[in-house]
Amino acid sequence: MLRVRAEVLTIGDELLLGQVVDTNAPYLARQLSEAGFLVVQTTTVGDDAVAIRQALAAAEQRAEAILITGGLGPTRDDLTKAVLADYFESELAEHPDALHHLIALFAQRGKTLSALNRQQAILPVKAQYVVNPTGTAPGMWFERAGKVTIAMPGVPSEMKIMMQQECLPRLRAHFQPTALLHRVVRTIGVGESTLAPLLDTWETHLPPHIRLAYLPAPGRVKLRLSGHGPDSGQLMQEMDEALNALPPAVQPYVYSYEDLEIEEALGQELKTRGLTLATAESCTGGYIGHRLTSIAGSSAYVRGGVIAYDNEVKISQLGVSPDVLQAHGAVSEPVVRIMATEVCRRLGAHLGVACSGVAGPGGGTPEKPVGTVWIACAYGARVETRKLQLTTERLLNIELTAVYALQLAWQMVRAE
Amino acid sequence: MLRVRAEVLTIGDELLLGQVVDTNAPYLARQLSEAGFLVVQTTTVGDDAVAIRQALAAAEQRAEAILITGGLGPTRDDLTKAVLADYFESELAEHPDALHHLIALFAQRGKTLSALNRQQAILPVKAQYVVNPTGTAPGMWFERAGKVTIAMPGVPSEMKIMMQQECLPRLRAHFQPTALLHRVVRTIGVGESTLAPLLDTWETHLPPHIRLAYLPAPGRVKLRLSGHGPDSGQLMQEMDEALNALPPAVQPYVYSYEDLEIEEALGQELKTRGLTLATAESCTGGYIGHRLTSIAGSSAYVRGGVIAYDNEVKISQLGVSPDVLQAHGAVSEPVVRIMATEVCRRLGAHLGVACSGVAGPGGGTPEKPVGTVWIACAYGARVETRKLQLTTERLLNIELTAVYALQLAWQMVRAE
Repeated sequence: MLRVRAEVLTIGDELLLGQVVDTNAPYLARQLSEAGFLVVQTTTVGDDAVAIRQALAAAEQRAEAILITGGLGPTRDDLTKAVLADYFESELAEHPDALHHLIALFAQRGKTLSALNRQQAILPVKAQYVVNPTGTAPGMWFERAGKVTIAMPGVPSEMKIMMQQECLPRLRAHFQPTALLHRVVRTIGVGESTLAPLLDTWETHLPPHIRLAYLPAPGRVKLRLSGHGPDSGQLMQEMDEALNALPPAVQPYVYSYEDLEIEEALGQELKTRGLTLATAESCTGGYIGHRLTSIAGSSAYVRGGVIAYDNEVKISQLGVSPDVLQAHGAVSEPVVRIMATEVCRRLGAHLGVACSGVAGPGGGTPEKPVGTVWIACAYGARVETRKLQLTTERLLNIELTAVYALQLAWQMVRAE
Repeated sequence: MLRVRAEVLTIGDELLLGQVVDTNAPYLARQLSEAGFLVVQTTTVGDDAVAIRQALAAAEQRAEAILITGGLGPTRDDLTKAVLADYFESELAEHPDALHHLIALFAQRGKTLSALNRQQAILPVKAQYVVNPTGTAPGMWFERAGKVTIAMPGVPSEMKIMMQQECLPRLRAHFQPTALLHRVVRTIGVGESTLAPLLDTWETHLPPHIRLAYLPAPGRVKLRLSGHGPDSGQLMQEMDEALNALPPAVQPYVYSYEDLEIEEALGQELKTRGLTLATAESCTGGYIGHRLTSIAGSSAYVRGGVIAYDNEVKISQLGVSPDVLQAHGAVSEPVVRIMATEVCRRLGAHLGVACSGVAGPGGGTPEKPVGTVWIACAYGARVETRKLQLTTERLLNIELTAVYALQLAWQMVRAE
């Protein structure tokens, strides 16, 4: 069956200079894929009229739907609108609805519309106006020879709302793409090259219209099944059967069959059991707390925590005795054991998660090189600890420590 | 003067499905730009032989250097090597150095080389072997008609080390590009459309070979000057003159003329003054601590903190009285004032940074809607507070709160 092809074109010198990571292309690719479009390419070019025009023409050769972000701002380096007007051979004129929206937006912010910002209401007359619910740069919808080209602002928060509320509904209505379904299996603590042989036979028995992909992240591998077909009910059933047949050797690493991060999976377990959690972080410096509290509704189970970065804080706020620090060092099992137990007690939580390690790049010793980390989880009378030997990269060590600490807590709650 | 053009091609279905954010393209684009290459386009295609081949051919039309990442892994969905062999009309053969490296790598990890992994030593004979210092998938360097095509693994940590140690030095030697210089001005608390008119006249007086770009991030705008010329000394002087002439109206928002995040700028101020800092976080849940401790060497000035997510923790760990919470609510000036002062005292720090707010999506009231945040900084006898009215997006509110709280601390230290 024929799928509607889509492309994403992101525009901005800052993206080519690599000083900003482009999150718009992945976001739009995902939205389009989940809507059933076949995303065949994403392209990034600079604020350069010739490059933008060439990329547009090339995309129109390959795809029916072309989504553009960036270069719509009020500053000199924004060229997209002029290029589109030229590309679609269209005059520019002030659009009454766009102007009305701008005036309302500025009034709401208690500001008057500047001449610079009023220019944002000027649009190619061949473009359909797409409202920007949260910003000043309007979107544009062009149709030519059965193909659709949409331009959206580059500011991710504005673009996402415009995509969700305006563009995606219209794209669905216009192209009516058939369904693409995904199922994921989330694993922790095993690498791609270890998983691959375990899954090889299973993968070869998948129906041809269901594909497996390995999506590795630090400490984790996401297994994604992508299936495409006319009958989404049958497709979902085939995927369920595939997941039920997942090799037992893989099971111990699986923590979720939904697309949940470990902090979300842990949060759900805590919520359903009415349990609360507190953190005692040294080397992660607050990152575990941040991951937990990034989840909306986490106040239901997160009490708080102590960031015991300095040893004196471990002593004064978590009751670690100077003797223990002296005898074993800050990066040791006895210390994380006390940290986890004490943070539970002092913050009145059911579970306490603790870590202490050498994040690097400095601070390593022959006995405890950079990447040496102890994690602990206290739950009621039980305390479990684990020693990790991680990498030489500071930020990677912080992330891995958080992932494994959250996994440890998840395992203890589930083990009940 | 003619610049050497470069393109980046990243490969992987997961990138087009948008379930993984491509950090390789921005990283390579930045490395190439800073080395003086003109990055004209970055492209992402799926694990699809036809698409990869077409993207390769198109890139070779536009650029002299093409850098590819992804699709080199040992699993079924990795096609890049086969496509390259076909594209460059080259046989495949086991490369002795690659095999030797694989055997050594597995021995070092105490594992024996599996058949699946041994396949990774098979390379197109026309390719020069590029060692992967930290992984199993080797890189490949192709030369044809004065153009260079390099394939690297998609795992960011492996790719980065290969780029730094192997590919970049060889690219520099091969093409000897002329210098591109950047200077940045980092601002906080002002939007792009407010800055633009303030900088308009200044920008028009920049030399034609120096370009200004606005790089907005939540709460921040990075102003980047990019200059290109044969004489890097003269170029640097011209940029210094431009920065010295920056309009006074912009100065209050500037916190750094180096490319530093606010936590780095604050860290430098604390270090040079021998000051220490502690955090008392409610709505940010540890994110301020995380940003501070993401910086290597932050243990010199970060004591730690208290994550007082639950009000009972504000009471028990930070001495906020129930009466004050009753009278003013957790999101109030008196509460953050006490939090900042007490965390200083209890953790023995010179500065205390505190915040309490409604991150959302829930928890808003007519008086305190989602996005209402109080921040405070205590330094010696002085305590400064600020009320923020932010957005309806939880993660954005967390980030903005952290940025403005760190800015407040930076301002108080500097104001001495």
